[in-house]
Amino acid sequence: MATKKDHCEQLMPNGRLRHLLTLEGLDRSVIERLLARARTYLRMPGEPPARDHLLEGRTVANLFFEPSTRTRASFELAAKRMSAYVLNLDVNMSSRIKGESIMDTIYTLQAMQVDIFVVRDASAGVPAMIANQVLPHISVLNAGESDRSHPTQGLLDLLTIEQHKGTFDDLIVTIVGDIAHSRVARSAAQGLRIMGIKELRLVAPDSLAPDPEKFPGAEFITDIEQGLEDADVVMTLRIQRERIKDESQQITDQKYLRNFGLTAERMSRAKPDAIVMHPGPINRDVEIASEVADGPQSVITEQVTNGLAIRMSVLAEIMESEQG
Amino acid sequence: MATKKDHCEQLMPNGRLRHLLTLEGLDRSVIERLLARARTYLRMPGEPPARDHLLEGRTVANLFFEPSTRTRASFELAAKRMSAYVLNLDVNMSSRIKGESIMDTIYTLQAMQVDIFVVRDASAGVPAMIANQVLPHISVLNAGESDRSHPTQGLLDLLTIEQHKGTFDDLIVTIVGDIAHSRVARSAAQGLRIMGIKELRLVAPDSLAPDPEKFPGAEFITDIEQGLEDADVVMTLRIQRERIKDESQQITDQKYLRNFGLTAERMSRAKPDAIVMHPGPINRDVEIASEVADGPQSVITEQVTNGLAIRMSVLAEIMESEQG
Amino acid sequence: MATKKDHCEQLMPNGRLRHLLTLEGLDRSVIERLLARARTYLRMPGEPPARDHLLEGRTVANLFFEPSTRTRASFELAAKRMSAYVLNLDVNMSSRIKGESIMDTIYTLQAMQVDIFVVRDASAGVPAMIANQVLPHISVLNAGESDRSHPTQGLLDLLTIEQHKGTFDDLIVTIVGDIAHSRVARSAAQGLRIMGIKELRLVAPDSLAPDPEKFPGAEFITDIEQGLEDADVVMTLRIQRERIKDESQQITDQKYLRNFGLTAERMSRAKPDAIVMHPGPINRDVEIASEVADGPQSVITEQVTNGLAIRMSVLAEIMESEQG
Repeated sequence: MATKKDHCEQLMPNGRLRHLLTLEGLDRSVIERLLARARTYLRMPGEPPARDHLLEGRTVANLFFEPSTRTRASFELAAKRMSAYVLNLDVNMSSRIKGESIMDTIYTLQAMQVDIFVVRDASAGVPAMIANQVLPHISVLNAGESDRSHPTQGLLDLLTIEQHKGTFDDLIVTIVGDIAHSRVARSAAQGLRIMGIKELRLVAPDSLAPDPEKFPGAEFITDIEQGLEDADVVMTLRIQRERIKDESQQITDQKYLRNFGLTAERMSRAKPDAIVMHPGPINRDVEIASEVADGPQSVITEQVTNGLAIRMSVLAEIMESEQG
Repeated sequence: MATKKDHCEQLMPNGRLRHLLTLEGLDRSVIERLLARARTYLRMPGEPPARDHLLEGRTVANLFFEPSTRTRASFELAAKRMSAYVLNLDVNMSSRIKGESIMDTIYTLQAMQVDIFVVRDASAGVPAMIANQVLPHISVLNAGESDRSHPTQGLLDLLTIEQHKGTFDDLIVTIVGDIAHSRVARSAAQGLRIMGIKELRLVAPDSLAPDPEKFPGAEFITDIEQGLEDADVVMTLRIQRERIKDESQQITDQKYLRNFGLTAERMSRAKPDAIVMHPGPINRDVEIASEVADGPQSVITEQVTNGLAIRMSVLAEIMESEQG
Repeated sequence: MATKKDHCEQLMPNGRLRHLLTLEGLDRSVIERLLARARTYLRMPGEPPARDHLLEGRTVANLFFEPSTRTRASFELAAKRMSAYVLNLDVNMSSRIKGESIMDTIYTLQAMQVDIFVVRDASAGVPAMIANQVLPHISVLNAGESDRSHPTQGLLDLLTIEQHKGTFDDLIVTIVGDIAHSRVARSAAQGLRIMGIKELRLVAPDSLAPDPEKFPGAEFITDIEQGLEDADVVMTLRIQRERIKDESQQITDQKYLRNFGLTAERMSRAKPDAIVMHPGPINRDVEIASEVADGPQSVITEQVTNGLAIRMSVLAEIMESEQG
């Protein structure tokens, strides 16, 4: 579990972010500042993308110990558009083949004056472990940690909801799917709670239901129709087949879609102006029907665009924190 | 087959290139403009390479769904020397491992404000499919498509021939080798036809002979000596062993060299000032004897240099088309 | 073996470096110039890293035909902080899968106006072979060659020793470990001899003892306690398990640590102000006890920092040599 230690230690004494490990325990004002700056990095399609020179001369290392296309690309472009040098170290290139520990890899890169580590790892606790051991001027950004935390995803979800709903106060948000294995759901739930939404509903089949302690204040529902009733925001999740180790827990695609997939018919139970979200990549016609994913209520591609803006915003915040 | 649709849709209403999917159906004036600009990007060995700032702030994504060293490196350096941000997404990093469709990957990268997609894929139709679905300000460059099209290779071949022969009018061009599986031969044949050469001869063993409909106006010859007679340009092709699925079609290296390889003796049948071309990578002493590949008539390394200039030229054309 | 040919041909007629293939036979003045310039590229932790614009517009290709994280990252950051374009071509992306020879890959990249090749290969002689065949304005940097040469590692070791000891004259340097398979030991021994240390001791178990001809002037010792007596510098080496082909030669970790590992107790035999070095990545508690690797005498992370400065210095030297 994300601990108090994580969310304290990611802050500077002046309350600014040094690392971004988890959304849990962050002040609403910090999140609002990150969302506000991200908005300044948004551009209309066809316009040149936003750029900033805050990271000029700095080095960002992307350490992805789990395969990733979209999140790595998003962090890479965010860093490049902030004028940083970017070093990509993926699973295959890793010195783990020579038996080196993660921390020895980090110490080595730190000695090469890497300023910011972007870390994705399948094991819980790795980003915080790194953050606790690097030099004082170095920052760690969590780019996906086990089933526990994915804070930039949580922030981009908040930004997307705010753009469409204006305010968080009266919102009913329903998250549907493989909640037990979802770091996306965890970070979204933490962020939504801080922003003070009215109601968070978690809809999952019994076999994918989460530990309630990990989602304080949320309501658990196994019937999807009931969960969607009057929702303002419907967030679907990718089935993480690779995380389900017990074969008997596997559900066929057709059965999943029939029982828990977000179809147009089901979606009609939500508010008429409800938005549909998904962190991607989508399993089409498994957790979400293609007609819903591509339909007028879908904000899925906006989430991607917002993700890049959020990552630029987090890089800017971290760099300014360091400079005092 | 490359369709009319492809070559219409790659043009802007003003006749300039928006995408580069195929050479088929391009106006001679468009090709001449691309060759002329490419010449401005050539430098003497030892001089600093040509650079241009036309793509400053823009993002080029290299999506190579087939392995490639030279073409990927050529596009990457072309984009960097035009001041673009470059994102490399190779086969292994691909989110296809998570089951995402190609188009969902494209929509995701488009939402991150990628401006130009450079695509290589083993399936016919993928570059056009992408071009037909991206936003209006986005361009697609075909970097090799099945056995069907490799337009920047065709352009670099034209540039190399023009440098050595001055004009295309009276040329006899002979392409020798695995024509049935060669996107290089297809694009070269399309380009040479547009530029109005006198005669195109295709020399292949029966088992590697092409579908005549794919090479309108060309002459098919199975005897290599006859095919080389008085040729001005001799283009050899790599045997694409990985594309020959029927084991019984496989030919041993020695037998291939003996029957269809370009030896110095055979080359003596061409005109004394004929040039020898090969798209690389070479299977030495299989489709071409080393003494010919490294000999005075070989322009193989010039082709590589011209390839980079052509890719810079195409990037420049595309960027200027977009800006009006 | 590194031959006279290598160390002659890496110099320009004016005595400056064109390539860096080996330290063997280099003039002390060349090494001193490289160390002096490297010192100008060092910065305090937390300060922005040193940058230089000497390679503006130039292209550096990293050709790593053996997997590497740290050395590739160090060369990549060195080149980027010198303003070069960097092209990474790793084992998996290599066109060797298509059967192309190394030299054909080099000729291709040379034709794309790559200026500097950084080459790591498991076969002896590859960097020199490339250096002997590229065009006159192109340079080759050896980034690790079989068990034979790793000159930038040797230089960073010299820089680290000089920082702590001031002078080389009266030093006793002890190298402990898998010397038979170590290019690091070879290059360090060559460099230390040129700088004129008092005594070089090589400590190895019989099964890992080197060919004495490869280490002229060194003393061979099988007893580690004896080898450490009064040493000023203790350099430990990684056991290169992947290089030991004969299974019967394999030693268990515990047995290795017990018999030849650098423990705190053993280290007490060296001079009180002796420094402990290791090229990384470390096999903790095999060739070196963690308490020694992380202890006050360890300079292991300084070696990494110095490695980046040395690589920048070598790039600068090569670029200035070329410009006359």
